[in-house]
Amino acid sequence: MNIYRNPPKKDWNSLLKRPELNHDALEQQVQQIIQDVAENGDTAVRKYSSEFDAYNGLDLEVASSEIQNAEKEVSEELRRAIEEAYWNIQTFHKKQLHPQGNVVTTAGVRCWQKPVAINKVGLYVPGGSAPLLSTVLMLGIPAKIAGCQEVVLCTPPDEKGKVSASILYIAALLGIDRVFKVGGVQAIASMAHGTESIPRVNKIFGPGNQYVTMAKQIVSRNTVAIDMPAGPSELAVIADATSNPAFIASDLLSQAEHGPDSQVLLLSDSGHMIDEVKGELQKQLELLPRKDIAAKALENSKMIRLNSQEEILEMINAYAPEHLIIVTENYAELADQVLNAGSVFLGDYTPESAGDYASGTNHTLPTNGWAHAYSGVNMDSFYKKITFQEISRYGLHNIGESIMTMAEAEQLQAHSSAVSIRLNYSEDA
Amino acid sequence: MNIYRNPPKKDWNSLLKRPELNHDALEQQVQQIIQDVAENGDTAVRKYSSEFDAYNGLDLEVASSEIQNAEKEVSEELRRAIEEAYWNIQTFHKKQLHPQGNVVTTAGVRCWQKPVAINKVGLYVPGGSAPLLSTVLMLGIPAKIAGCQEVVLCTPPDEKGKVSASILYIAALLGIDRVFKVGGVQAIASMAHGTESIPRVNKIFGPGNQYVTMAKQIVSRNTVAIDMPAGPSELAVIADATSNPAFIASDLLSQAEHGPDSQVLLLSDSGHMIDEVKGELQKQLELLPRKDIAAKALENSKMIRLNSQEEILEMINAYAPEHLIIVTENYAELADQVLNAGSVFLGDYTPESAGDYASGTNHTLPTNGWAHAYSGVNMDSFYKKITFQEISRYGLHNIGESIMTMAEAEQLQAHSSAVSIRLNYSEDA
Repeated sequence: MNIYRNPPKKDWNSLLKRPELNHDALEQQVQQIIQDVAENGDTAVRKYSSEFDAYNGLDLEVASSEIQNAEKEVSEELRRAIEEAYWNIQTFHKKQLHPQGNVVTTAGVRCWQKPVAINKVGLYVPGGSAPLLSTVLMLGIPAKIAGCQEVVLCTPPDEKGKVSASILYIAALLGIDRVFKVGGVQAIASMAHGTESIPRVNKIFGPGNQYVTMAKQIVSRNTVAIDMPAGPSELAVIADATSNPAFIASDLLSQAEHGPDSQVLLLSDSGHMIDEVKGELQKQLELLPRKDIAAKALENSKMIRLNSQEEILEMINAYAPEHLIIVTENYAELADQVLNAGSVFLGDYTPESAGDYASGTNHTLPTNGWAHAYSGVNMDSFYKKITFQEISRYGLHNIGESIMTMAEAEQLQAHSSAVSIRLNYSEDA
Repeated sequence: MNIYRNPPKKDWNSLLKRPELNHDALEQQVQQIIQDVAENGDTAVRKYSSEFDAYNGLDLEVASSEIQNAEKEVSEELRRAIEEAYWNIQTFHKKQLHPQGNVVTTAGVRCWQKPVAINKVGLYVPGGSAPLLSTVLMLGIPAKIAGCQEVVLCTPPDEKGKVSASILYIAALLGIDRVFKVGGVQAIASMAHGTESIPRVNKIFGPGNQYVTMAKQIVSRNTVAIDMPAGPSELAVIADATSNPAFIASDLLSQAEHGPDSQVLLLSDSGHMIDEVKGELQKQLELLPRKDIAAKALENSKMIRLNSQEEILEMINAYAPEHLIIVTENYAELADQVLNAGSVFLGDYTPESAGDYASGTNHTLPTNGWAHAYSGVNMDSFYKKITFQEISRYGLHNIGESIMTMAEAEQLQAHSSAVSIRLNYSEDA
């Protein structure tokens, strides 16, 4: 960890700068795979599955019997944990739905907004040594609450064409229609363009490595919507002299173990606290199986002492962290002042890992400063809100003059005539 | 208009195909301007304003006295129209706000979602011969309701550096902070990267020509959020034997006059109605000042007779039109079956132009099939929804086991330790 004490404001920008994500070099390579899948469908998908996942089988879809039988391969303990997380995530997301009423904006003019589930959604779940089973919950639960008609899941297989049983178990639990053992760029391309086996979807969700991220970005330009732009995961912690340094160190490390490019930040008005956290970090780091990864992430990480909580909040809002933990004595007061963050964790007993798995909030969150403008995945992500309007003859009489005046000011005569032809029409004729 | 009678389903895809928007050729040119503005700020902006708008002045910002005085140059009739539209748009958008409550997902685990306005937003309003004053209302009203701290507007000037008085009048009415007389790619680049005069924003809204559209797409990859991808405007009308052909023709023409690339579609189960509309179109077209543009758009437009309303709905949901007018006898019934559309207009007295200006709904809507996954601009567009969670020691005790089990299944030991270190901690120590 690098420690900064009272850096002058003019240096904040460079201090908070994230590593440049230059994916341009990847773009051509990823673009070629996408085009190949768009043109050659399953044949191309199989080629890349063989090349990148060493899977040479013909089957691209997981058999429904395999999905139904996955339960047996998942320990009872893990099933219980999954079911508890399921309950909490479902409870929180269901409460985000709001009934939409009619609005009479002028007598005779009735407007309303109707949320309609996106028809077909695709969920991408990275595999590898540690399958991200929690991602299936975080994306699958809101998709099923929304009532998306088709929910498709892609995740990479091992050499034998097997997919993690815990992922299949959750798919069965949620009622996810179809699971494909396809990963990487070829998975994103398949869901964007459709192949003989894999249906084309309207929106793709989910995390992934830099190839997957680039593929999502490319297909989102012309073909399909995506959840949000992605970058390395981030955590910022705000602490004061009363915080618990061991707890903080455990949170910083749980972020750091994600990958060497993880971004970790500690802000405090107490230099003493920073020193204590530093000591705790060294102690706890030694105990971690992924300590090499975590140590690497910590090399780029920063502990910053600032003079006041006011300055700390200003810096946090400029940085817009994906995750923000506030463990000061007055955390509720500071929480009110957070303007830019993905998800916020309050108090000593709210570790980030609670939100990663089981508190109920979503863990798919905006990184890389996108929290300035993007929300994390939430129920809105699975809906379009279509507007409707119904105007009576009387209503059009009321607002017609205004429409015609404005249309003519914009030199759009036909827009005006669409009103006048109606107002001049005699229903008795 | 091209007429198709009962086209077989296998031809639907090609029938509904929109013109390919190949912006690749523009990309490099637009990218160069963006980079120049990012590197050279105001100097570059002035260069392009001179080149593209023939404006050679130094001022990039409209003086606040000019904004305040614009009222005098706007007719009382237009001011009244603007104020009526303002009222309706504000009324409809305000009703989209919902109070967010706390959710206790498990005893001791409290989560909530807080909508926070995006701090800085930029509105782009195209100028030219007919300034799109309605766009200022459609983007400015929700931005001000949301409470965005800084709302910036860019619109191209004429040679003398003048901006449309009606745009300035609306800016003053809404309390839009700053208006810049900058248009085109240089405007988008300025708001994305910031210059000495023009502040960098978090999200850019607004329509524009293909250069502006390309610029928005490019800056959205790395720098700033945008409202949505854009394409030519579209209208589909569903009619039956009872509809009024003159009304329908007026709506088709009001779409067609937007530009030669406008997409116009009429679907009906009545061949007779299609013939009648065709006759009305020819009659009404002759009366339009923009008849050359409209005639050009109609050349690519389609009237399709299908056997049943069921097939019509199926085709509409596959096409996902930006605007959809339903003027069948049973329009309310069909409205319930619309799954993919931007904004829907119901009944004989609800022309599209009502929604373009004054019914209250937003006119910034998804085109080019994006209505499958995107909403039009609405209050959500101006907020991030930040999630918060606060867990008590008792709450962490309740869900801790699940978190640890799932974290370990994902081989993320530090995520598990962040829980165990808290649960094992003795507060009495």
